[in-house]
Parts: sequence; structure tokens; C-alpha cells
Amino acid sequence: MSENLHVLITGAAGMIGQKLIARLVREPRLAGKPIERMTLVDVVAAGVPKDAPFKVTARAGDLSLPGEASASVADAPQYVFHLAGVVSGEAETDFEKGYRVNIDGTRFLFDAIRNRENYKPRVVFTSSAAVYGGPFDGPVTDDFHLTPHSSYGVAKAIGEQLLADYSRRGFFDGVGIRLPAITVRPGKPNKAASGFFSSIIREPLAGQNAMLPISDETLHSHASPRAAVGYLLHASTLDTNELEQRPNLMMPAVACTIAEQIEALRKVGGDKAVARIQHVRDTLIERIVSGWPHQFEAKRALALGFVPDRDFDEIVAIHVEDELEGKIGG
Amino acid sequence: MSENLHVLITGAAGMIGQKLIARLVREPRLAGKPIERMTLVDVVAAGVPKDAPFKVTARAGDLSLPGEASASVADAPQYVFHLAGVVSGEAETDFEKGYRVNIDGTRFLFDAIRNRENYKPRVVFTSSAAVYGGPFDGPVTDDFHLTPHSSYGVAKAIGEQLLADYSRRGFFDGVGIRLPAITVRPGKPNKAASGFFSSIIREPLAGQNAMLPISDETLHSHASPRAAVGYLLHASTLDTNELEQRPNLMMPAVACTIAEQIEALRKVGGDKAVARIQHVRDTLIERIVSGWPHQFEAKRALALGFVPDRDFDEIVAIHVEDELEGKIGG
Repeated sequence: MSENLHVLITGAAGMIGQKLIARLVREPRLAGKPIERMTLVDVVAAGVPKDAPFKVTARAGDLSLPGEASASVADAPQYVFHLAGVVSGEAETDFEKGYRVNIDGTRFLFDAIRNRENYKPRVVFTSSAAVYGGPFDGPVTDDFHLTPHSSYGVAKAIGEQLLADYSRRGFFDGVGIRLPAITVRPGKPNKAASGFFSSIIREPLAGQNAMLPISDETLHSHASPRAAVGYLLHASTLDTNELEQRPNLMMPAVACTIAEQIEALRKVGGDKAVARIQHVRDTLIERIVSGWPHQFEAKRALALGFVPDRDFDEIVAIHVEDELEGKIGG
Repeated sequence: MSENLHVLITGAAGMIGQKLIARLVREPRLAGKPIERMTLVDVVAAGVPKDAPFKVTARAGDLSLPGEASASVADAPQYVFHLAGVVSGEAETDFEKGYRVNIDGTRFLFDAIRNRENYKPRVVFTSSAAVYGGPFDGPVTDDFHLTPHSSYGVAKAIGEQLLADYSRRGFFDGVGIRLPAITVRPGKPNKAASGFFSSIIREPLAGQNAMLPISDETLHSHASPRAAVGYLLHASTLDTNELEQRPNLMMPAVACTIAEQIEALRKVGGDKAVARIQHVRDTLIERIVSGWPHQFEAKRALALGFVPDRDFDEIVAIHVEDELEGKIGG
């Protein structure tokens, strides 16, 4: 590998992409070498950080359109973080767009890499716990099959198969990481069925009300945005010989009930914050959430050194520190 | 469904395709209705059976080329048996051809079905035990993950994901069946690493010598060509509501050691036949075979009524009956 370290991030305008960029601006090294250049790709040009100690180029482009994937790897970045994709709700409502962006876009990027001579970058691909679909018999083990309940999950499962085959054949050096629910997701409330897992923490801490549509006895698994960025960075530098030709890994997560989430909120925001959660049962959301996996063993990822949040208290603390500058509203 | 029953078979010139056609010529009904028409598609036009009690059209065409998939379903066949594909050896040596035929060809066929109005055929897709890759911890369970060791297996795993998603969304009514090793495969010896499982039976019964390259203590799982055709027909008529959105099924198989295979040969061909097997160890074949799954629980398929061969004696008897007209050479 050249010493002139160049990092490509696709989906750079998304939440995880922005967090990854911010982290690399603060800690501009990978595998001990200084980053000298970063290319950001997204359908809208990602914001370029002002204080980056390396050159940043932002491209507006759709990897599923002709030429874009090749252009993105034209300067042979040694590290490729492939985060780009249509989110699950949109991939379900717009089937053709979801397949085009999530399947074709990924394959075109992988082929653009394959078609370059003397080029074998590390590729980190964000997959998702959406590759799993119920029924489940206890926590999901590392050898559990992938039977997604959504076109988004299907596209991620296909991306994983491509990543494994291209890595096995030596076209690149890939690691796929299946992210659990990212909590507390910053920003405004959205209509995702999973949105309440974040909003029952985020809204009360901002002095606003939040709705809880399902039983607080429900168990679910979470990683903070900071932990997710940690997974990406660890995936970019680990020894892929240890992956034994199974480069797709479920990431570890903090498993807790919603009641435990609420107690973690109480420690920080008090009874006043907890009182802002309104229990309004929604049977549709109950049904959707019941088809999701709630707990993961993630033994392989833990053995490979991926580090989850300690507990949900830490997840709340990270939100307060990274999003609220330590200040609790309300 | 129209009463004018029309069956499409892709990969019709292949061994399983030919066996399926012969069976439907003898028993020209599906789900109790008479077959009135059959369309055969393959890269070379499949032989048209002379004695078929229904109209047969053979097309020479590659489903991965523009227009061919749409043309194949232009007359809206109610049953689609999708057997077409580049075999595992060729898919490994010619990466681009394998992906084009095995992935793009399958997706184009599925999309051609999706894009027809008011059309929802039963689609039976032949997958393969090659979707599994070691290490294994005992017999492969129905919820074991798919980590193929070949580009062929990756393409089959991707085809399964597409089949499940297109079925879930109601574009068609799909069943994917993972075939085990087909033994005794008729025809000449080939260079497939798995070839000896058939040739140690086939060649001695034809009065010829065969090589055994690995230990006779090795366990492996088999289905006769006749059982494989039975799986296809059962998949075409079962109630897909029973599949619980997991339409890809590992088929049951006869698990036995090579020594047990040889004893079954002895019962039919005597010591003279067994003496024609020459043990010549091949460490490359040992290594390849050791990465394959050797035994499958296949609980779901058994519960759904898929019927395997009784034992390896029956597999040998089927070979003698179907390929040798009851006559043993030598």
C-alpha cells in the first residue's frame, strides 16, 4: 500500500457517515498511518469539514448510475467505507429504486474495484440486523440463517454474499458489519417503526414528549452512534486472516428492555423526563417489532475485538455528551 | 389460473431438465390438471420428446441476454421450473460468465415475471447444497447460515434471496430447493471433484474401472436423479402458505459412508464389480470434499412431504432400472 493514505466514504451525507468523518477529522490516522486524502460520495454532496487536517473532495453521485462507481475509485483509495444505501422504509415502498441503489450500486462499486489493476483495498460494508427475520429461537447466533422480512434486508444479505465472494477471490479485502439498532439516533423524530427506541430518550431530554407504542417489557439491542463508528474503524484495521472466509459479522450490542432504557433516562433526566413518555399502544408497530431479532450472541465479533457500549446508561451518556454538549433541556 | 396448463422449463437440456421432461411426458399432469403446453429454454435447444401428449416448443436462448427472459414468459406459463445455470466448475473459472448467467439470468427471469400484468406463476428454483461452506458443527440444520466456498454457491444464495423477496412481495409464488449430490449421475466420468461418488457405482456396473480418491469412511449425502425430479414436482404443487415466508428448503438425502455405497454396489454387482474400484488417494480432492457439508437434517422439507430415496441400495437400484434397463455390464 502507498503511504499516501486515501479514504473513500460512500453514503457520506448520512448520519453514520457524518459521525465517521468527524471522528477521522479528530483522529486522522488508520492503522497508524496519517490520512492524507478523503473522498466523500453521496447522492447529495456531503458537507466538507472545515477543520480537516487532510484534503477532502465531495462528489455528488449515485453509484448505481453508469461511470460513478469507477470515478469514485479512480484514485485508488486504500480504504473504502461503503455506507451508501436507500433506507429500509423507502426500499420497501419503492422496490425498483431500492434494488437499483442497494444491490446494483453495491455490485457496481465492487466491480469498479475488481476491474482496476493492482488494486486491493480494504472494503468495509455496513450491513444490518435487518438481514434476520423471525421466528427466532432465543438470541441470534453467529451461524443463524438470513431470512429478511424486507427488501432492504434482502439487499444487505446479497451485498454480504458479494462481499464474501469478492474477498475470497482476492478482488478486495472485505469486512461486512451487521449493525444493530442505533440508539440514541440524533435528529428529529421520524416515522420509522423503530423510531421510538431513540425518541423515548431524545425527546424527554430535550424537554419534549415522546410516544411509547409497545410494552416496556420488550427486549431489544442497541449500539450508540459512537460505538457504530468504532465498529467501522475496527473493521478497517483488523487482520482479515482471522475471519476464516466468513467476513460478515453481527456486531455486539447492549440488550435491554424498554423499562431498563427508561430507568437509564431517569438517572439522567429524573422523573420529570420519564413523565414525558406517553404509553399509547400501537398494534401495527407491535407486530412489526415482534418480527425483528432482539438479541445477538455476536461471539465472533467480540472475540475479534469489536467493543460495544457497556450498558444503556453509557448509551444515554454518549447522547448527552455528543449531541447535547452535556446540557439537558426541559 | 387458466385451464390451459403451460409449463416452462429453463436449463431444459441439462440432466435434471431432461429427466423432468421425461417424467412429465409419462405423467402429463400438475396439481391434477393436464399439461397442454411446454416451453423448453436452454442455451442450446433442448431435444423435443417425440411422444409428448402436449405441445412442446424448444427455444435456444440465454436468459441473461436482453429480451430472452421476457420472451420466455410471453405466453404466461403457470409453472416455471428454473433450472438453468452455469455449473460450479465453470462458474469458478469464468467469474464473469458465472455471475452473468447465474445471477443476472435469474434476476432477469424473475423481473420478466414481475413486469407482466396479472401474472403470478409458481416458480420452482433449483438451489444447491453448495450454498453451505464449512466449518460445520454436525449435520446442517435448516437454520444454518449460508457461507458458500464458491461463486456458484454465492449465485445460488443470491437467487434464493431474490426468490424469497419476490415471493414475499407477491410477484410470484416461489419455492427454492437445495439439491444434495445427485447420485448416480448418468453419463461419462467428468472432472468434477464430486465425480467419484457416482463413478464408483456407474463404472463398475458398466464393466469399467473407477478411482476412489478419498477415504471410504467419508460420510456424504445423496439423492437419485429420480428423487430430485420428485422434489421438483412436489415443490410445484405444495401449499406455499405452509412455507412461512421461508421458501428455500434443503432437500432430504440419504447419508452414508463411501464404504456403505460400496456394499450397496456389491449386492448388485458382486465382488467383481467392487474389485473395479481402485483406491488412489488425491489430497486436493480430500481438501475440497472436506469443505462440503456431508449431512442435512432437512426437517422442514420432510415435514412438507418431500420424499427422499429410502437408502443407498434404492439409489443403486434406480440407476440400474432407469439407466441400464435392468442390465448389469461386465
